Amino acid sequence: MSEFTDKAPVPLEKVRRYLEPGPIVLVSSAWEGRRNIMTMGWHTVMAFSPPLVGCIISADNHSFEMIRRSGECVINLPTTTLTDQVVGVGNSSGAEVDKFARFGLTAEPAEQVSAPLVGECHAHFECRMFDDALVERYNFFIWEVVAARAAVSPEYPETLHYTGDGVFMVAGKIISRRDQFLPEML
Amino acid sequence: MSEFTDKAPVPLEKVRRYLEPGPIVLVSSAWEGRRNIMTMGWHTVMAFSPPLVGCIISADNHSFEMIRRSGECVINLPTTTLTDQVVGVGNSSGAEVDKFARFGLTAEPAEQVSAPLVGECHAHFECRMFDDALVERYNFFIWEVVAARAAVSPEYPETLHYTGDGVFMVAGKIISRRDQFLPEML
Repeated sequence: MSEFTDKAPVPLEKVRRYLEPGPIVLVSSAWEGRRNIMTMGWHTVMAFSPPLVGCIISADNHSFEMIRRSGECVINLPTTTLTDQVVGVGNSSGAEVDKFARFGLTAEPAEQVSAPLVGECHAHFECRMFDDALVERYNFFIWEVVAARAAVSPEYPETLHYTGDGVFMVAGKIISRRDQFLPEML
Repeated sequence: MSEFTDKAPVPLEKVRRYLEPGPIVLVSSAWEGRRNIMTMGWHTVMAFSPPLVGCIISADNHSFEMIRRSGECVINLPTTTLTDQVVGVGNSSGAEVDKFARFGLTAEPAEQVSAPLVGECHAHFECRMFDDALVERYNFFIWEVVAARAAVSPEYPETLHYTGDGVFMVAGKIISRRDQFLPEML
């Protein structure tokens, strides 16, 4: 059961608010009746409008072919509450287990794509393939975010930022310097 | 004067340790006797070996042409100590001021590239252009990190993670789940 029961649409130009800080994310996918989840830390915002996100999905992942063939995925934002699930998802293969069942995660229907949301996450970004020019060479996918939802509170949840070696940095505390920004930079 | 006086080489396969968490970074460049610094939050690790980093550098930035023409840059990792300098660098243009002088930052010589390091930063990643296939369409540069140095301590400094709207999340606290990882995932 999710701690985040009250979610609302996120304006698409605000997607960077959640992804630019660089959190580890859970990427969910579906293809031919199967579904899967993987952890992913190699991603970047690429444009505001349309909102584009680039990411590396290694061909070693069970999710790779499901995502490439369906041309869709959902990027879900877990918080520190889900640390053990994030580690579990990242250390198992969808070829062997249904990770939703195994880690007690809830597959919820998305609005615009067939891939499911991971209900326990703080936010969800539904993605459709925008450009696969670098998939062959680098496993680099460029996604357009076509729908986004996030929990109404907390405004800045504690997120996990992976450093390798089994260690995550935690972000949550914030610093505002809004008063030092030029209006056109906000 | 930098608080980080004792720095050591970072093995190139460990670059992800610093950049995968998604910090805001300072990108320094040099071209035809000029030098500049910009802030950058849209970046991702793309490969371990060779260590590749992809990033968006908007053509609106004064640094864009300097970086494109030189085919080099340095990605510097600032900590929360440099918050005001990060904001200042991001809200001014190298077309108008020498940002090193303006913000009291020290240009130090790099080992492998002509672009200077920003001495006050915690870590430095010297980059050479690896692939410019997506520069025209997305302003997306793919860099090979050819040299890396980082402060010996602290091991996990407080870093800034930009959310937009003048607000940064701060990461620094860590969580280790190393004992739950498969050996091949470490």
